[in-house]
Amino acid sequence: MTTGVRRRMGVEERRQQLIGVALELFSRRSPDEVSIDEIASRAGISRPLVYHYFPGKLSLYEAALRRAAEDLASRFEEPQKGPLGSRLRRVMARFFDFVDEHGPGFAALMRGGPAVGSSATNALIDSVRQAAYDQMLAHMGVADPAPARLELVVRSWISLVESTALIWLDGRRVPREELEVQLVQDFAALAAVAAARDEELAALLRGLIGNEPGDGPFTDLATRLISLAAR
Amino acid sequence: MTTGVRRRMGVEERRQQLIGVALELFSRRSPDEVSIDEIASRAGISRPLVYHYFPGKLSLYEAALRRAAEDLASRFEEPQKGPLGSRLRRVMARFFDFVDEHGPGFAALMRGGPAVGSSATNALIDSVRQAAYDQMLAHMGVADPAPARLELVVRSWISLVESTALIWLDGRRVPREELEVQLVQDFAALAAVAAARDEELAALLRGLIGNEPGDGPFTDLATRLISLAAR
Repeated sequence: MTTGVRRRMGVEERRQQLIGVALELFSRRSPDEVSIDEIASRAGISRPLVYHYFPGKLSLYEAALRRAAEDLASRFEEPQKGPLGSRLRRVMARFFDFVDEHGPGFAALMRGGPAVGSSATNALIDSVRQAAYDQMLAHMGVADPAPARLELVVRSWISLVESTALIWLDGRRVPREELEVQLVQDFAALAAVAAARDEELAALLRGLIGNEPGDGPFTDLATRLISLAAR
Repeated sequence: MTTGVRRRMGVEERRQQLIGVALELFSRRSPDEVSIDEIASRAGISRPLVYHYFPGKLSLYEAALRRAAEDLASRFEEPQKGPLGSRLRRVMARFFDFVDEHGPGFAALMRGGPAVGSSATNALIDSVRQAAYDQMLAHMGVADPAPARLELVVRSWISLVESTALIWLDGRRVPREELEVQLVQDFAALAAVAAARDEELAALLRGLIGNEPGDGPFTDLATRLISLAAR
């Protein structure tokens, strides 16, 4: 949004405006393809002035990433009540909203590339993963540190969610609503595979699934698998 | 291995030696923590001479990565005969051998960091993922391009394998043999979840699982899950 009107902004207000402009551009093209000139022009200020607020493209990129990371982490927050399957389903919907809104920026970030891969960037991505992990443990009623096999299931499922979103972005050939449900069911499936050789995990899973309603994603999966096996 | 004896090597021989020394060091410490001085000293040559063969640390790093990538891709090669579960089980064993041998180097590469994230590095990682994907399709008897939902299952499972290996490396708190079987079973579980809403995938899966022996990983999973559900 070029403002047209040149008015005096405070430092923090201007920084926030530039971050907003950057995120808006990154949502349609990879950050590598967006120049400081373009950001300056969209913000209605000169290129040197952008450098006054951010010493380089990387620092603006990192600030934009920080805001996006906070936004993403906030979407994992979900009240701890009701069936687990429905909670995860709502979180997945908000996660795919985020991926949809940030498209190319999200893809560039997760795939790495010339403008990313800095220690600050990696630390930020890790902090979002950790926020997702902490939320999952809280929803399962498990204290940190979790048992090793449970930690592995939760963390590897989070990476499955990331990669599924990335593959979805590349062509969007499967409806996202379908993937949102599928990922919730994937969690149950991966947990079941691990629980099949871990009594502690099996007991935890039984407790969680015991509260599932007949129309939830876990029951839906069980019904579908039984019908699949019967054919 | 410091040779002690200074003998004249050909250019290619020297380059291969330096790559070998680098990979050996990267297998115990992150590439960021390994200096050119150390590589030179191990190879029994001077630091300037290393730069004669590789213009900078990044170029040596990329050459080492290229050799490791070829090594890794070769471990996916598995004769297309016998039950699918047993084939995948053998591939997983060789994959964990690789992860075990290359420890910190593998972790640094997959997590990204100051020395990685270049376009060449990313392209190399993508080529290994693609080799794994091609092998999987071949073993399933599916032509490329695969149906969208099958592609998603296979590619997202490959990322699950990567992340599981990374989490395993961080403390090795679960025996790797257990994870090798679990990942094969995870593939079946993820495929089943997707097949539960895709008739084409269900038919393919039925054909693949129909050939499984009673002592294979897929039958093992089914038996365990049935016993889990019965309790």
